[in-house]
Amino acid sequence: MGKIQIVRREQPKTKPDPEKLGFGQYFTDHMLVMDYSAETGWREPEIVPYGPISLDPSAMVLHYGQEVFEGMKAYTLEDGRIALFRPDMNMKRMNQSCERLSIPPFDPETVLEGIVELVSLDRDWIPDGDDTSLYIRPFIIATEPCLGVRAAKEYKLIVILSPVGSYYPEGIHPVSIYVEDQFVRAVRGGTGAAKTSGNYAAGIKAQETAKEQGFSQVLWLDGVEKKYIEEVGSMNVFFKIGGEVVTPALSGSILAGITRDSVITMLRSWGLTVTERKISVEELFEAARKGLLEEAFGTGTAAVISPIGTMKWEQEQITIAGGNTGEYAKKLYDTITGIQKGLLEDRFGWMKEIQE
Amino acid sequence: MGKIQIVRREQPKTKPDPEKLGFGQYFTDHMLVMDYSAETGWREPEIVPYGPISLDPSAMVLHYGQEVFEGMKAYTLEDGRIALFRPDMNMKRMNQSCERLSIPPFDPETVLEGIVELVSLDRDWIPDGDDTSLYIRPFIIATEPCLGVRAAKEYKLIVILSPVGSYYPEGIHPVSIYVEDQFVRAVRGGTGAAKTSGNYAAGIKAQETAKEQGFSQVLWLDGVEKKYIEEVGSMNVFFKIGGEVVTPALSGSILAGITRDSVITMLRSWGLTVTERKISVEELFEAARKGLLEEAFGTGTAAVISPIGTMKWEQEQITIAGGNTGEYAKKLYDTITGIQKGLLEDRFGWMKEIQE
Repeated sequence: MGKIQIVRREQPKTKPDPEKLGFGQYFTDHMLVMDYSAETGWREPEIVPYGPISLDPSAMVLHYGQEVFEGMKAYTLEDGRIALFRPDMNMKRMNQSCERLSIPPFDPETVLEGIVELVSLDRDWIPDGDDTSLYIRPFIIATEPCLGVRAAKEYKLIVILSPVGSYYPEGIHPVSIYVEDQFVRAVRGGTGAAKTSGNYAAGIKAQETAKEQGFSQVLWLDGVEKKYIEEVGSMNVFFKIGGEVVTPALSGSILAGITRDSVITMLRSWGLTVTERKISVEELFEAARKGLLEEAFGTGTAAVISPIGTMKWEQEQITIAGGNTGEYAKKLYDTITGIQKGLLEDRFGWMKEIQE
Repeated sequence: MGKIQIVRREQPKTKPDPEKLGFGQYFTDHMLVMDYSAETGWREPEIVPYGPISLDPSAMVLHYGQEVFEGMKAYTLEDGRIALFRPDMNMKRMNQSCERLSIPPFDPETVLEGIVELVSLDRDWIPDGDDTSLYIRPFIIATEPCLGVRAAKEYKLIVILSPVGSYYPEGIHPVSIYVEDQFVRAVRGGTGAAKTSGNYAAGIKAQETAKEQGFSQVLWLDGVEKKYIEEVGSMNVFFKIGGEVVTPALSGSILAGITRDSVITMLRSWGLTVTERKISVEELFEAARKGLLEEAFGTGTAAVISPIGTMKWEQEQITIAGGNTGEYAKKLYDTITGIQKGLLEDRFGWMKEIQE
């Protein structure tokens, strides 16, 4: 620690009301910035006061979307220590996203060290209420000022921090989902397996349509046959059918979620069979009709676990687990958030403590 | 004219060497900016000195890619007048792109009036060499500082101008193309029909792979069956087979090119049959094997017409029109650029002259 150059904010910002944090609305006092140019490669990261960045209007990210990002969290443990959840996985995935987007890879250790230093510097911003955390958003943008359609020669990696409130202020509860059969999020050979801005832009319209119809989110089907389940909103999705847990296999158009990986590991450690395979929406509804669909839930960094209470596909609507949070959804949520808060034993070595 | 508020640059920039313009590397003295917020709607456009824009690092465009853009050109006619090529089409398409990306629509007349005023103000920047022009890049970015995945409540519409050199400094010449069978640019239900950054980001890697293998560009196949031809690079594509011209129909994953539309209109005015339909790469190669594939060319704002000399698909490589520029590719290029330069009669009413 201490190797990174820090320019401190002179006057710390006023912190927001801890009861009204929401998600991604407030940002801390500092940010990490690391520049790349074809001549120098990735330079050393620096910590500077959080504030606007200056971009030429022709900066390539604003035209051709060369961008990747990550989402991870820091927690105040019950004993006051600070820890990150599986940050090495985020660094690894970010470099995989870079590969797909033709962005030069960075040294994951350097960036993770920078993130640790940044979180440590802004540690007063980590909220300590139930289920709150400090959301960490690393991202890379193509900054070269040029309108040619090609990989840029200049980039900026930035890490910003946002204190976020509980995703479930009134306790974990199930959502209603709509099976999207018009819009498509991603297709094999596309960018669906990368965490890049264009995937999210493609989904906004479907999400709005779902909301207008009274649903919280959409269930995405594959782009080729519009038959197989891929993701729910911007989360991975799991189903418990006849005692077995199934989740869509990583086909190339699905994001390899870190919570997805943690959930698979945990369920298996409890003795459940978890299968990664193709699941058609028809198979799912057929299982529901036969009374075999026991649970359904999304997984992601923001919500951790998001139980699905009802699902609508064409003219048919099904209710899952009686419209309540299923047994395993609740157990997974309690166990993962328990580990993240330092209340439960970290038996898989997922927490990276920040030494001060 | 004259209704738009103008803040002039105090010291005009030095103009670049007209022989070394390239594409999208130099920008003029001013830009047009128009802001949107959910409270006020789109405000009045303003012309200000060209310069960096200030964005919060959490500005939504940098994370979720809510962005649309356009490409159009202004020309100095032979008699010194200035004119734009079919600008109403660009404004219309930009609003269609906004619809897909959940960006609030703007008044096309207000923005076009702003563009005319901007081009008029920076008219000294319009190059007058053969096949040169002033490239106009309108774009809209989501500027709201928030990490929630949803449509933003704040946007910025910006128009920048770039003097561009001849696309063919040594005369129009054919390129070699590689049929891409791994990566996919777009799929029905996705954003392929919109002009948005994510589509271009998705294509960069394939383009790099093609270049490494000695090809200029890739021919994109449909995302579902990987069988039907969609676009070439970032252009629409045309084939002349046995005397008839065919081009992929606008299926929902293909951009409705304005040059595409102009080419169809012009070919029909010359008495040719032009059919918009599905064309499989197998049909194309079969036509080539039988000696029926007479011409192939891409169409777009930057190159106008880009003849295809050779094309490789899996292990087979075909040569088109003897590897030369085909008769109609040449005639279309000469006629469209002739109209754009005011050398030929504008019989379709495509040029919008700028009154001073």
